[in-house]
Amino acid sequence: MRTSIATVSLSGSLTEKLTAAARAGFDGVEIFENDLLASPLTPEEIRARTTDLGLSIDLYQPMRDIEAVPEDEFARNLRRARHKFELMRRLGADTVLVCSSVSPLAVDDDALAAGQLRQLADLAQDFGIRVAYEALAWGRHVSTYDHAWSIVEAADHPSLGTCLDSFHILARGCDPKGIEDIPGEKIFFLQLADAPLMAMDVLQWSRHYRCFPGQGGFDIAGLLGHVMSAGYRGPLSLEVFNDVFRQAEAGPTAVDARRSLLVLQEATGLATPPAPVVPTGVAFTELVTPDVAPVAALLGALGFTRTARHRSKPVDLWQQGEARVLVNTGPAARRDGTALAAIGLESPDPAAAARRAESLLAPVLPRRRALEDAPLDAVAAPDGTELFFCVSPERSHSLKQGGTGTPDLPELPTWTDDFEPVAHQPAARSVTRVDHLALTQPWHQFDEAALFHRSVLGLGAQESVDVADPYGLHRSRAVTNADGSVRIALGVGPAPTDDGARAQHIALATDDVVTAARRFREAGGRLLPMPANYYDDLAARYEFADGELATYRELGILYDRDGDGEFRHCYTETVGRVFFELVQRDGGYQGYGARNAPVRRAAQHAMRRPGR
Amino acid sequence: MRTSIATVSLSGSLTEKLTAAARAGFDGVEIFENDLLASPLTPEEIRARTTDLGLSIDLYQPMRDIEAVPEDEFARNLRRARHKFELMRRLGADTVLVCSSVSPLAVDDDALAAGQLRQLADLAQDFGIRVAYEALAWGRHVSTYDHAWSIVEAADHPSLGTCLDSFHILARGCDPKGIEDIPGEKIFFLQLADAPLMAMDVLQWSRHYRCFPGQGGFDIAGLLGHVMSAGYRGPLSLEVFNDVFRQAEAGPTAVDARRSLLVLQEATGLATPPAPVVPTGVAFTELVTPDVAPVAALLGALGFTRTARHRSKPVDLWQQGEARVLVNTGPAARRDGTALAAIGLESPDPAAAARRAESLLAPVLPRRRALEDAPLDAVAAPDGTELFFCVSPERSHSLKQGGTGTPDLPELPTWTDDFEPVAHQPAARSVTRVDHLALTQPWHQFDEAALFHRSVLGLGAQESVDVADPYGLHRSRAVTNADGSVRIALGVGPAPTDDGARAQHIALATDDVVTAARRFREAGGRLLPMPANYYDDLAARYEFADGELATYRELGILYDRDGDGEFRHCYTETVGRVFFELVQRDGGYQGYGARNAPVRRAAQHAMRRPGR
Repeated sequence: MRTSIATVSLSGSLTEKLTAAARAGFDGVEIFENDLLASPLTPEEIRARTTDLGLSIDLYQPMRDIEAVPEDEFARNLRRARHKFELMRRLGADTVLVCSSVSPLAVDDDALAAGQLRQLADLAQDFGIRVAYEALAWGRHVSTYDHAWSIVEAADHPSLGTCLDSFHILARGCDPKGIEDIPGEKIFFLQLADAPLMAMDVLQWSRHYRCFPGQGGFDIAGLLGHVMSAGYRGPLSLEVFNDVFRQAEAGPTAVDARRSLLVLQEATGLATPPAPVVPTGVAFTELVTPDVAPVAALLGALGFTRTARHRSKPVDLWQQGEARVLVNTGPAARRDGTALAAIGLESPDPAAAARRAESLLAPVLPRRRALEDAPLDAVAAPDGTELFFCVSPERSHSLKQGGTGTPDLPELPTWTDDFEPVAHQPAARSVTRVDHLALTQPWHQFDEAALFHRSVLGLGAQESVDVADPYGLHRSRAVTNADGSVRIALGVGPAPTDDGARAQHIALATDDVVTAARRFREAGGRLLPMPANYYDDLAARYEFADGELATYRELGILYDRDGDGEFRHCYTETVGRVFFELVQRDGGYQGYGARNAPVRRAAQHAMRRPGR
Repeated sequence: MRTSIATVSLSGSLTEKLTAAARAGFDGVEIFENDLLASPLTPEEIRARTTDLGLSIDLYQPMRDIEAVPEDEFARNLRRARHKFELMRRLGADTVLVCSSVSPLAVDDDALAAGQLRQLADLAQDFGIRVAYEALAWGRHVSTYDHAWSIVEAADHPSLGTCLDSFHILARGCDPKGIEDIPGEKIFFLQLADAPLMAMDVLQWSRHYRCFPGQGGFDIAGLLGHVMSAGYRGPLSLEVFNDVFRQAEAGPTAVDARRSLLVLQEATGLATPPAPVVPTGVAFTELVTPDVAPVAALLGALGFTRTARHRSKPVDLWQQGEARVLVNTGPAARRDGTALAAIGLESPDPAAAARRAESLLAPVLPRRRALEDAPLDAVAAPDGTELFFCVSPERSHSLKQGGTGTPDLPELPTWTDDFEPVAHQPAARSVTRVDHLALTQPWHQFDEAALFHRSVLGLGAQESVDVADPYGLHRSRAVTNADGSVRIALGVGPAPTDDGARAQHIALATDDVVTAARRFREAGGRLLPMPANYYDDLAARYEFADGELATYRELGILYDRDGDGEFRHCYTETVGRVFFELVQRDGGYQGYGARNAPVRRAAQHAMRRPGR
């Protein structure tokens, strides 16, 4: 199906909006009137620009406060409409959106509304224009789609149909099943927007919090199913008013918008991109650093051993159990200090995972191949982190044996083939694997990041939680696979800030956090100290075995408990943007110690700025 | 009365919060438990710190999910409470807040709640501690203040009283009159918070949108009146959860908080600061500039004439009608490019205006006096703009004649006495006076700015309006005096940005904007061009006289109309942070052309970044 986007959904000048929509692969646009008014381009120039960009103008919108008004007012409205129809002819737009009136002049008289809309449609017909009448959720007398349709039906004019908007329908809790009672050819347009489920004034909700399908809480796929069953064959068009998207760069927003439509089409059987290949583990994390010594010291103290070196690049492999960290001192490292630049995701089928990602508009990265390198399929996440789909040696074997149910796979080279072992001493092992990664996202891309990880990687998204930092409220939302072997906590700060300051952390799983923390400290590592008051509070809340709390207090180990199990964790100092966490999960605890996050954040501030 | 503030209302570490509260002049604090848990200071150190700062600890808060639970759970809760009471003894805090339970374990049994609270109070009594029980608006079974009081009354224990929170009471629409039925000595504590009137989930509203009294829409003064009538004599304490304050610097937030309490005390007759002296006009605006030529060219083209020069400083006075612009090329000018640095406000009594400002914690600026300077009383607005209270020559005369009802004033020197006339040619006059000033505020200080202008200057605040800029949603809120001779539009952008980029504009009143615009252009001024599409839209909306619209189109004049009258306005180019607007008001139009602002903003972006 054709896809379209309202210009109001994107930031910038009309030119910037059109360019972004075209580059993201939309077929058409809705021209939001204010964007046209503010543009220095004439309607003819806009038409030419859209044609050059391969875009159609699918809708001109909105026309407001037209119907169910006294005759003199309606005469003025028809005059206004004539002007707009002339404009649309210059623009080459053949459908106009008319929103149900919010005017204090409007009266509650469906027959009058139908009669005046019929007159409007008569006029529109002269211009070859179709009028799509839509119920605003806060319309004065018409606020539900079935009411709008009953007026359109009564008007009975070939140039008059209805426009459905998922927000207006679902925000009021209307049952979308009744859409199937509308003849498909009378649904002139379909606008799609999702929104987080919030109890708030519907006008404010609509104007500030709409988001792309899949980013919010509405069942957009269900609604679309009913619209398709009704026989609608027009474009799927996004109309999203969102305070954040208004500030964000139009290009990435448009890509995210298109991705959301692709996922929606997949969910309703309207498109069949390659199926998701859910990652089964974290193969490696890659740190880039201009200064290897503190990174090496930190990894060493954590129990990692440098086991191999890349054949052709300045990259070392540090390993401990199934946890592997690449330390890259190549050219990329010199830009921003120590940072987590890439994540290797264990994939049952790396090539298929990359095809899925590419089909959902993830930027595919050039394969980083030296002469003998194993091919690595990689895409960029919205925050710029490189995601590699790969196979580790122990998994390569089991995959070839058909161990994960994919018996026909061709030979799977493992990414470690690119590395040559270096001599090393076996060390005491504290860490078994990566428990989770926590990545602070660019402020404008938090919702986008969650949708990306859900749709491209097939991870499940958990609820967003607030975390109080001493200097502002952060949010965090985890995306995970079913067995918890891949967990990424996407975070966002209270306001747009310097991207270089965005914290990243790697949480390492251990079966015994006390021993791991002691070993780390004995090896010269510095643990983040936690305030004594925190432990007094733990003592008030829970009963511990003798000496247990004293040990936690000594080592800076934090504790959480829920109905499923227990969580003990502690933190290293920070190098560049990166720090590590040691994590012990017991029972079925699935969280991340969110209630401890404010204390941890305060401790990190205190370490950076002692005495404040 | 004593004033207090909850540490959760301020950003930073506990140390920073305490320091900010003390510097702003609070008598005490509520210690929010999470702030204590995250602090590296021991309770004894916190106690010593507050003592050193002259602060009392008026409340420890909150204790949650205590009452109306099964016996085994309550035993655990008492154990937890004992720990907290021990902590409070170390801290020197003698009152604890207990919020009505939100626990799924709590049962709807007032007798059980009263009995368990009585046991809690028994324990508290052993520690010399008082328990203040408060109804959370979202409490599971107890959510109204009268319900909480009935349980306290039933418990009938000298160490158990109630805590009232204006948000919890007013957010649920409860009638606060019933507070008078509670014996004053049983109201152990009073927490005050305002909030903008919003239809939204009360928990989200409370956690993110609370603000200081006078910044929102609740009748806090009315509620306080009832609390005082009941006989309450404890502290007035602010407890404000606000996403913006969490990020803002604690110092200015604390000052704003104290100011809000002073204004509230004034409104309820609990304090009598000097009465407001409402300004009666804009005496001058002062631009600082490192490069006088473009500023002089712009002023000259607008019809201003350089009429005088300061006796001792590099400051020129440009004048046209009652509009006066000072151009300062002194040292301050070299920092940030051309900017509006000061506003002279006509005052019937400058010294009294300054006393009012000082009593409401406005930073008083050192009088800028050279040897012979007229004394000028000045304070700093939250955005750093200097506000001078002064008398212009034509007003000095009328004030001395008792013309404005202040017949006994001593001789009022006029600020222009500091200036020596320079030879100049009389010019054709386009502008009569300053219509309004529009000042973009630092992002964290938008609500603060409105409260400052209302309380310190006695201006009235209008509703906040949204303005769509191509790169994000702005907000704007006007503060004005009764006759509209002082109008300041406070604006704020979509996110914290570089303060140096904050736009400022001076709108000049003219009786004939067309002539004024033509003269400006003929004198070499450059008007901001507006897009043709905007005029096509005007033609669709309104009927104009022959040629009128063509003239507007030619000159870039924008048009608005409402039930009261008409508004025509156009804009100059921008120099540094500053641009001018020419404004013609007809009839009783009181607005600022907000519906034209998106087009104007887009045109300004287009001028700065052509081709986008």
